[in-house]
Amino acid sequence: MPTLTEVARHAGVTPATVSNVLRNRGRVGETTRQRVLEAVDALGYRPHLAARALAEGRAPTLALMVSSIANPFYPEFALAVERAARTSGHFVIICNTNEDPVTGRAYLDQIAGTLSEGVLVTNANLELADLHMTESRGTPVVLCMWERPNEPPGLPCVAVDFRLAGELAGEHLLELGHRRIGAIVGSKASGIHAARYEGFVDALRAAGAPKNRVKHAADTIQGGYNAARALLEADPKLTAIFATNDLPALGAMHAAADLGLNVPADLSVVGITDIQLARESRPALTTVAVPTVEVAGLAVSLLRELIESSYGQAGRSKAKVPMRVSSAPKLMVRASTGTPRLRSR
Amino acid sequence: MPTLTEVARHAGVTPATVSNVLRNRGRVGETTRQRVLEAVDALGYRPHLAARALAEGRAPTLALMVSSIANPFYPEFALAVERAARTSGHFVIICNTNEDPVTGRAYLDQIAGTLSEGVLVTNANLELADLHMTESRGTPVVLCMWERPNEPPGLPCVAVDFRLAGELAGEHLLELGHRRIGAIVGSKASGIHAARYEGFVDALRAAGAPKNRVKHAADTIQGGYNAARALLEADPKLTAIFATNDLPALGAMHAAADLGLNVPADLSVVGITDIQLARESRPALTTVAVPTVEVAGLAVSLLRELIESSYGQAGRSKAKVPMRVSSAPKLMVRASTGTPRLRSR
Repeated sequence: MPTLTEVARHAGVTPATVSNVLRNRGRVGETTRQRVLEAVDALGYRPHLAARALAEGRAPTLALMVSSIANPFYPEFALAVERAARTSGHFVIICNTNEDPVTGRAYLDQIAGTLSEGVLVTNANLELADLHMTESRGTPVVLCMWERPNEPPGLPCVAVDFRLAGELAGEHLLELGHRRIGAIVGSKASGIHAARYEGFVDALRAAGAPKNRVKHAADTIQGGYNAARALLEADPKLTAIFATNDLPALGAMHAAADLGLNVPADLSVVGITDIQLARESRPALTTVAVPTVEVAGLAVSLLRELIESSYGQAGRSKAKVPMRVSSAPKLMVRASTGTPRLRSR
Repeated sequence: MPTLTEVARHAGVTPATVSNVLRNRGRVGETTRQRVLEAVDALGYRPHLAARALAEGRAPTLALMVSSIANPFYPEFALAVERAARTSGHFVIICNTNEDPVTGRAYLDQIAGTLSEGVLVTNANLELADLHMTESRGTPVVLCMWERPNEPPGLPCVAVDFRLAGELAGEHLLELGHRRIGAIVGSKASGIHAARYEGFVDALRAAGAPKNRVKHAADTIQGGYNAARALLEADPKLTAIFATNDLPALGAMHAAADLGLNVPADLSVVGITDIQLARESRPALTTVAVPTVEVAGLAVSLLRELIESSYGQAGRSKAKVPMRVSSAPKLMVRASTGTPRLRSR
């Protein structure tokens, strides 16, 4: 690849002049400008992104930390982030932590502030302390999909009211007439899905419904499958299952199929998120949709603002930590839920 | 973030000495080395990847071009590539072209040789001419999942015998006793799935089976769904469907469910690839597995060799274009295929 110096030599100007032309800076006469551009074309020179980033004290990519690229939600979110980032000429480096805080820290240490000028984090099981460290070194961090708008995390974030999502799912099942409902929580009791389950419990309590059975599970199809089988074994009279995420909800539908139960006639199933598979499953999954594309857009624009304002580099007070809240989650009624019918087994 | 110069000042040495210590180069006395490392610790200095890459004339990432990050195969493959790349300290930038050659070219122009020192391409609908251009500028390119080991593409590649995959799928259905088999091809007739279909047709021909019905479709669940419905409408007596990829095969299973057909009793379905969803569907999908993890490893190691040997920068003859061939695809028999039974409809 030709260098800036070679372009300058070809055009008979200094490298600084080439740089000024390419960056539309400084005063350069039109004739000189033309000569430089012709040299650029003739040699096939491309401005060196890494060099430019270095010269300008900034790097041209955003990093997106995800906990599991194999979980279909993250590619969908990554796609939305990439589209939003592209509008400002940023490329997105997807860093997959595999739910391992040590891997996450390694990525943060090596990428933040060097390859990437900002970091987006989605439930990546990172220690908040590591994220604060990255921020304190001058690389802005935005948490996407923060689950509790009422309890800001002390880092810039885009929050989604996931408690409401759980509540909407619960109310939907109650309105259909379900009273014996099992719950699958795709995280530990104190984990990232806790808010969703709290909302669900709120809905049941408001309706005076009996205490529900709950099973904590891996946030996967297999995790939901195992949990649903355990719930239905413990209480064969359950008429509905609520899962805190679509993947375990899909697993619950598989469990129903293997047990010879018809969904929704024998068992209603509802999830949260509305990943593409929710729409594509048979029966299609009723779920509470999270505004993924909107969250991606809010997160990228917040991160860009922080980068441009050199957020975190100057001393700042905690009170100023910005939070954007997405529009509310929304119930999507599909074929996996219906009125309960009595069944004998 | 502290600079190399600040570390040098703190340690009372020149920046060149700090650089030598960090890169284990040059002659530096043990006392000086210790002083430098203490300064690095004290200031929290992290070697600047972009700066280092620039200084060494190389960039520290590999780019992975995929045609659709929303297609679950690509995240699975990206995960495998990332794991392989990590062993040599490379990060992977995933570039999603959305099956648009123009987007692909934009990525290649901006990333190759600047942010990334090598490019992996997976069916990214890129023009071969664009890839040759990238290579001629000194950035090695490796095509992953090349479909025809017998017809090398003129670029370094990892090839998989997809024709054999189609043949194995066809033979499996024939051995079960199927004779009226519909085929769904997830690309245009001359597209990337053509080899798979040719192998399938070979198997039918070898068995003296009648000519099959074929439908070309989008390589998605929905595409497979539509194609299966069209095939079953044109010939309600089909007892099996072969799809050139798992996603359209899953769509064919959905179509069967919507038509009230039991899989496999009324309709057997077989795919190619063995994505995670194939294992997780109900019934689980019989498919011909492609060695995804092996291909990722071969592709990363080939790309690293090309980077280290400065492949493409010197003049070279076409005869030397390297190709690695993966181990053979392998039939995975699951619950979606069985012997045909007569049905009246």
